[in-house]
Amino acid sequence: MSANTFGRIFQLTSYGESHGDSIGGVIDGFPSGFKVNLEAVQQEIYRRKTNSGMHSSKRDEDDRLEILSGIFEGKTLGTPIAFRVKNKDARSKDYDELKDIYRPSHADYTWEMKYGHRDYRGGGRASARETLSRVVAGAFAKQWLAEKGIRFTAWVRQIGEVSAMDSSIPNHKQIEESVLRCPDMMAEAEMLNELELARKAQDSLGGVIHCEIEGVPAGLGEPVFDKLQAELAKAILSIPAAQGFEYGSGFVGAQLRGSVNNDEFELVDGKIATKTNLSGGIQGGISNGQNIYFNVAFKPVATIGQEQETVNSKLQTVKIKAKGRHDVCVVPRAVPIVEAMAAMVIMDYYLLAK
Amino acid sequence: MSANTFGRIFQLTSYGESHGDSIGGVIDGFPSGFKVNLEAVQQEIYRRKTNSGMHSSKRDEDDRLEILSGIFEGKTLGTPIAFRVKNKDARSKDYDELKDIYRPSHADYTWEMKYGHRDYRGGGRASARETLSRVVAGAFAKQWLAEKGIRFTAWVRQIGEVSAMDSSIPNHKQIEESVLRCPDMMAEAEMLNELELARKAQDSLGGVIHCEIEGVPAGLGEPVFDKLQAELAKAILSIPAAQGFEYGSGFVGAQLRGSVNNDEFELVDGKIATKTNLSGGIQGGISNGQNIYFNVAFKPVATIGQEQETVNSKLQTVKIKAKGRHDVCVVPRAVPIVEAMAAMVIMDYYLLAK
Amino acid sequence: MSANTFGRIFQLTSYGESHGDSIGGVIDGFPSGFKVNLEAVQQEIYRRKTNSGMHSSKRDEDDRLEILSGIFEGKTLGTPIAFRVKNKDARSKDYDELKDIYRPSHADYTWEMKYGHRDYRGGGRASARETLSRVVAGAFAKQWLAEKGIRFTAWVRQIGEVSAMDSSIPNHKQIEESVLRCPDMMAEAEMLNELELARKAQDSLGGVIHCEIEGVPAGLGEPVFDKLQAELAKAILSIPAAQGFEYGSGFVGAQLRGSVNNDEFELVDGKIATKTNLSGGIQGGISNGQNIYFNVAFKPVATIGQEQETVNSKLQTVKIKAKGRHDVCVVPRAVPIVEAMAAMVIMDYYLLAK
Amino acid sequence: MSANTFGRIFQLTSYGESHGDSIGGVIDGFPSGFKVNLEAVQQEIYRRKTNSGMHSSKRDEDDRLEILSGIFEGKTLGTPIAFRVKNKDARSKDYDELKDIYRPSHADYTWEMKYGHRDYRGGGRASARETLSRVVAGAFAKQWLAEKGIRFTAWVRQIGEVSAMDSSIPNHKQIEESVLRCPDMMAEAEMLNELELARKAQDSLGGVIHCEIEGVPAGLGEPVFDKLQAELAKAILSIPAAQGFEYGSGFVGAQLRGSVNNDEFELVDGKIATKTNLSGGIQGGISNGQNIYFNVAFKPVATIGQEQETVNSKLQTVKIKAKGRHDVCVVPRAVPIVEAMAAMVIMDYYLLAK
Repeated sequence: MSANTFGRIFQLTSYGESHGDSIGGVIDGFPSGFKVNLEAVQQEIYRRKTNSGMHSSKRDEDDRLEILSGIFEGKTLGTPIAFRVKNKDARSKDYDELKDIYRPSHADYTWEMKYGHRDYRGGGRASARETLSRVVAGAFAKQWLAEKGIRFTAWVRQIGEVSAMDSSIPNHKQIEESVLRCPDMMAEAEMLNELELARKAQDSLGGVIHCEIEGVPAGLGEPVFDKLQAELAKAILSIPAAQGFEYGSGFVGAQLRGSVNNDEFELVDGKIATKTNLSGGIQGGISNGQNIYFNVAFKPVATIGQEQETVNSKLQTVKIKAKGRHDVCVVPRAVPIVEAMAAMVIMDYYLLAK
Repeated sequence: MSANTFGRIFQLTSYGESHGDSIGGVIDGFPSGFKVNLEAVQQEIYRRKTNSGMHSSKRDEDDRLEILSGIFEGKTLGTPIAFRVKNKDARSKDYDELKDIYRPSHADYTWEMKYGHRDYRGGGRASARETLSRVVAGAFAKQWLAEKGIRFTAWVRQIGEVSAMDSSIPNHKQIEESVLRCPDMMAEAEMLNELELARKAQDSLGGVIHCEIEGVPAGLGEPVFDKLQAELAKAILSIPAAQGFEYGSGFVGAQLRGSVNNDEFELVDGKIATKTNLSGGIQGGISNGQNIYFNVAFKPVATIGQEQETVNSKLQTVKIKAKGRHDVCVVPRAVPIVEAMAAMVIMDYYLLAK
Repeated sequence: MSANTFGRIFQLTSYGESHGDSIGGVIDGFPSGFKVNLEAVQQEIYRRKTNSGMHSSKRDEDDRLEILSGIFEGKTLGTPIAFRVKNKDARSKDYDELKDIYRPSHADYTWEMKYGHRDYRGGGRASARETLSRVVAGAFAKQWLAEKGIRFTAWVRQIGEVSAMDSSIPNHKQIEESVLRCPDMMAEAEMLNELELARKAQDSLGGVIHCEIEGVPAGLGEPVFDKLQAELAKAILSIPAAQGFEYGSGFVGAQLRGSVNNDEFELVDGKIATKTNLSGGIQGGISNGQNIYFNVAFKPVATIGQEQETVNSKLQTVKIKAKGRHDVCVVPRAVPIVEAMAAMVIMDYYLLAK
Repeated sequence: MSANTFGRIFQLTSYGESHGDSIGGVIDGFPSGFKVNLEAVQQEIYRRKTNSGMHSSKRDEDDRLEILSGIFEGKTLGTPIAFRVKNKDARSKDYDELKDIYRPSHADYTWEMKYGHRDYRGGGRASARETLSRVVAGAFAKQWLAEKGIRFTAWVRQIGEVSAMDSSIPNHKQIEESVLRCPDMMAEAEMLNELELARKAQDSLGGVIHCEIEGVPAGLGEPVFDKLQAELAKAILSIPAAQGFEYGSGFVGAQLRGSVNNDEFELVDGKIATKTNLSGGIQGGISNGQNIYFNVAFKPVATIGQEQETVNSKLQTVKIKAKGRHDVCVVPRAVPIVEAMAAMVIMDYYLLAK
């Protein structure tokens, strides 16, 4: 029921405002007796925090993970795993002048309409900092699923108008070595150029992330309303700034004929497989054993250095201009978030199908 | 929890195989004391059944709605509204030869993996006939929301490679007068041509539906995981053959700069509005009072008259060819389904926000 | 979320007013491939309908079960199993004079407060006839659990002030041979006498049902809020007229000392068991492999032939007197309902623990 | 879905092992803009911790509440309210010898069967210390409901075989002045005597708590499965050591005739009321505006100083004897827990009915 809880069997209940005590959550439904690598979870937190020095804000967040329950002698108990990551630098005064202003394409106005009272400092709960909880829960899910042979790989496929070439699935090292998490080095160079131009123009850019899920066995998913792709779509569209989701042949597939788009079955080493995979590994809401893949569109960052007109809570027209450092493009930092949400969905459905 | 139930406050629990006794469901959470126009609900069932004689199968379904509970003296009781629509023509023998065959890009194989035992006749529960229940529940929601000034308008924007021109929101009559539910008559003529070509080639086509929701007040939605767009995405991606969802500027927005994509606020008659609406009426997961709109990509129909290779349950390679009449393109018939799912989401969130 | 849906994995969504088209529901989450004995389900419906001619109303309900979906070639599909039982004899006029009257200790007034508009005929949805859906779903659960060696046995332990002797678990035949579903023949004779006295006084009686669940393996249940006994309590207290639930030593246990009430563990044939079972088979919310048992208190039937004072919707004081036949005591008929609710809980937890 | 989450609109997700970092939780669904009295919440934590020095263990818990999110400038944000209470004194070694032993009537064995890996220190998550989270959430609910005129009063009605006299609802001060939270001073003196005898015998006692809820408006509740009494029963039976629940005339009512047990309606100052209240304020699952009241039976504490036989995880028969201080009776300390659970249910239903 709760908008701050995700999943059915494997659940994350998330909490926290960007400038409150901490961001954290409670993971419930994680199987007992699993040896957790907490250092690997911490690494995912760091992946979310940075891509390259040039494109991300320099605010030092530290972001050390504290586990409050659910792990004993290094292994999960099957009880709720509560965690928190303390917030830093909460200089409330920095935000005083934004207190009453509805920033364009931010959640200020809509949250005011819904809640009346809101924490205006750095977006409060509407800040993208809430994704930290997702990354932690996703890291737990990825570790557990890795033991079942399921692997998640996301990377940047487009920034602004620059697209990477289609390719086979890169390895994680290749992706992390790219400052933009784009393994196509030619495209990356162009993207960096685009970002530099946008930065100079005090503007921002969006982009597209592609995600591949390997190793999902056939038969995972639910019919009708909870189709695997439907839950993935919800998970992904709940990420701040995401505004498009397509899986398999997606929007391009809408232009193809059935004879082209259909995936004929064949036998490979006596096992059923498909010759092509335009279905993106899902048919009728249920996995078919092929790779599951999808694209996510992210809008450009709403905070820009250019002057914009807007309205404040006193119904006055005002002008604003973002001050200090801010991100030109957050798409590379969204890569671990996309993986995390995908992992949470797959783990939930895996446990559901058990 | 259940994959056959949608919604939290306003809920539809759906049932039925395409060749069983009936398709139906139970609507729960509908407010009491509402005078229902059942004839209008029946009309929506008919809208789902046909667009034009040329493009849809001729199987006569009749599809009369029976209400089993929840309405007394013409008004809702606040108790579950159960309904059913009887199935017809269940000549099981017609399906005997498909019994063991996994049709390409159908759910046969994946359902077999999940359930072991399945009703192979006409797709069973995986048949698009299940959408009938959605249309009924959506019709109830649309009636109730209409009294709050909320209106849903969907139409065909693309079939195969032919796109309609962007335009202001057409009225329902314009849409229904088009055999393809595409109010751009120029594009429609081209689409009909494309369909004829595909029909001759024993092939099929997909397309894109656009949906506009007018009149949603500001403040509807939930933060974090249950953002309004996330729930819409899930609802829409749960429709058979849907494989892409974008709202607001969507995938195009990923190419724009922030200065272009941002929606500046302004005062119109003393009320807060946005100058542009590339956010698609939603910011931070919550409605801002502007129109909500989105696009859905549908893949081409998987059933085609051309011969295709595939595999059967005995792990033999076989060839199949669809016999008899079948739809070249079902996108126009999906229009009321898209509206229905959107209406169910908005009604659920409306009641949640109450 | 919905008040008309019970369970998490194994779910029943129930519908129906007592004088509408039918009472029915949708069972979801039932595993696929199970060969269902529908005749046995029908028998449970009959068990609910009658105990003996003397004590139940003679209204002929017929109550033939129709399955609308989810079963194909005699086996479950894993898809929703929808069913209905048609209502009969809906002579609305019989109820006209009760239309505006709030009968003492009935739901008329409270439903009016909640819903405004209600079906006053025979209690509408608040009629005990809704329990028919529970009995159907419970019968499915009992069949499935029987294959796991889990068995449910409920019987009447008290009617009015007459209590049966404690005894070992009777077999179902012994219980069904008793007109009051009380296997203690001495007590039964006394109970029949009590009932006759109450009948003559145009009054009604309540009673207590005891239920034993054998064969539940250790380890079933959930911690904290969803303890096995908590869910059983909810399931049982949702039965119309139930107003008390105790498991294990219950209210008597509150008087005992720990040294008496504790169940020491011992080894029986190398397996862990308890010497006594005052815990009722549950410790810390989770089954310990011993029998689970509980008592349910039912209040006397609210409808009586004696004149009572009450108020109508026009805020007038009025007198009422029930006409025609009506039950003096419904406790024996509640036996299959108690078993059904217990079976639904155990099946849900069994699937959850899988 | 999750066993560690309670409620639908107003939700508590609870976490924590008794000897881990902390006990805490996340409250979701609390309305925004409410001025919280955190000192009053802290007082409820203290109420749970002590009744009198004689009957409770002396372990100093301190138990200072930390709020981690959801409150800004003293008012709720409508976002999740996360909180924690640090654990103290976690000397793990004290528990080493109980590591492998299944204490009689404790959760050791059943948790081992369910989870395999468990935190054996002080009961881990199965410790009654988890009720701290309930008391916090309940304190928030009580504050909010107090503004609607709804009030919760629970007290001790029975300890061992000593019962208090029935009486009108005492005020909170009277209850808190009693070391046993029993406002009947005569009974209290006897209870103290009983407790002293049990203490000397190294034994323990259980008891009964009575709870009254005043001010609930008519029309609150849900039909069929989620009846108000059903949800209360679940909430209450989820409290550690609770093993019986009855509302209204309860088990005694099962002995009464309908003419005695029925609550006739009458007009009081032009408003509908009942002459008696044996229905406990609920009819057909929905409140009727009268006081809601219920009794809870608690079993005697399972930990006793007497020697008991049991079994360990190596399947050896062993003898155990609790060392050090431990509670002879925890019933008085359960009073605020009972109130908390009742308040959580009423708040959830209040918001649901809104």
